[in-house]
Amino acid sequence: MELTEKKISEEKIFDGVVLHVRRDTIELPNGNISTREYIKHNGAVCVIPVTNEGEIILERQYRYPIGRVVTEIPAGKLEIGEDPLEAAKRELYEETGYIPGKMEYIGDYIGSPALLEERVTMYLATELTKGEAHLDDDEFLEVFTMPLEEAYQMVMSNEFADAKTQLCILKAYILLNK
Amino acid sequence: MELTEKKISEEKIFDGVVLHVRRDTIELPNGNISTREYIKHNGAVCVIPVTNEGEIILERQYRYPIGRVVTEIPAGKLEIGEDPLEAAKRELYEETGYIPGKMEYIGDYIGSPALLEERVTMYLATELTKGEAHLDDDEFLEVFTMPLEEAYQMVMSNEFADAKTQLCILKAYILLNK
Repeated sequence: MELTEKKISEEKIFDGVVLHVRRDTIELPNGNISTREYIKHNGAVCVIPVTNEGEIILERQYRYPIGRVVTEIPAGKLEIGEDPLEAAKRELYEETGYIPGKMEYIGDYIGSPALLEERVTMYLATELTKGEAHLDDDEFLEVFTMPLEEAYQMVMSNEFADAKTQLCILKAYILLNK
Repeated sequence: MELTEKKISEEKIFDGVVLHVRRDTIELPNGNISTREYIKHNGAVCVIPVTNEGEIILERQYRYPIGRVVTEIPAGKLEIGEDPLEAAKRELYEETGYIPGKMEYIGDYIGSPALLEERVTMYLATELTKGEAHLDDDEFLEVFTMPLEEAYQMVMSNEFADAKTQLCILKAYILLNK
């Protein structure tokens, strides 16, 4: 079956600091004309840091779109042209102070493929050395640790809200317990 | 540590057919003023259907924001006021024709908490009866099946692009192999 949608024209709806909204006119596989509203995005990275003692490093931070504090693994946007591996190391260091001896690529995901171009590349960080976090003045988060085994059980009992955190905990637990 | 960001004012940037874009002026925990650009969203559901033979039902569909065909489990937006369980059954039936004898809630997730309000509720559908799909005229997707065991291995070797599909395959595999 032909599934591809072809772009006819693109309309810039909004170019903000973080959101870049487009509304394209497209041709469907049956020849009908439709529109697609979506968010352009340069991509992001996330990293699940696991200490030699089997603890993961987590962050609590306020997420404005959902109006509450969310517990997440370290993550951040890619700068234009930035290598995902370097971005993941940078975010880990800036947000938590940890420097990894080893970084393993463990996949990537599209978080909301109907709406958002964003692809998030996932890493497992191990052989960690603790330093000092370097947050921006207007960045607020609390760092804490938890055994990976406990975090895995919490994913299975639906106690984490965030997709990347759930997915990376399951993947890291499976990979490290093979 | 105080983490909460307080809304000062809200600006409507765009109200489209699917995207509702806001830019709010907020007060940070340190009293500084900043802005938050984000997408309002009513929520969505997804469902991983597993047959009595241990096969999962998957769909291939074109995802315009990322410009390619993506393999995903059935999913869809919540209508205003719609019960997530009923929405999941409806999407499963419309897109694949399957009717579940049993639906189990297996958690929910926020796909992109920095940008997008969307919360996705996840279900595991079993005891399936096959009927006919009921796609809209302008909806194009291919339905196929694959052993859950094979899908699990494919998640671990990073062969699925989509977050909900990866997360639900891992959760279903773990739950059904306990």
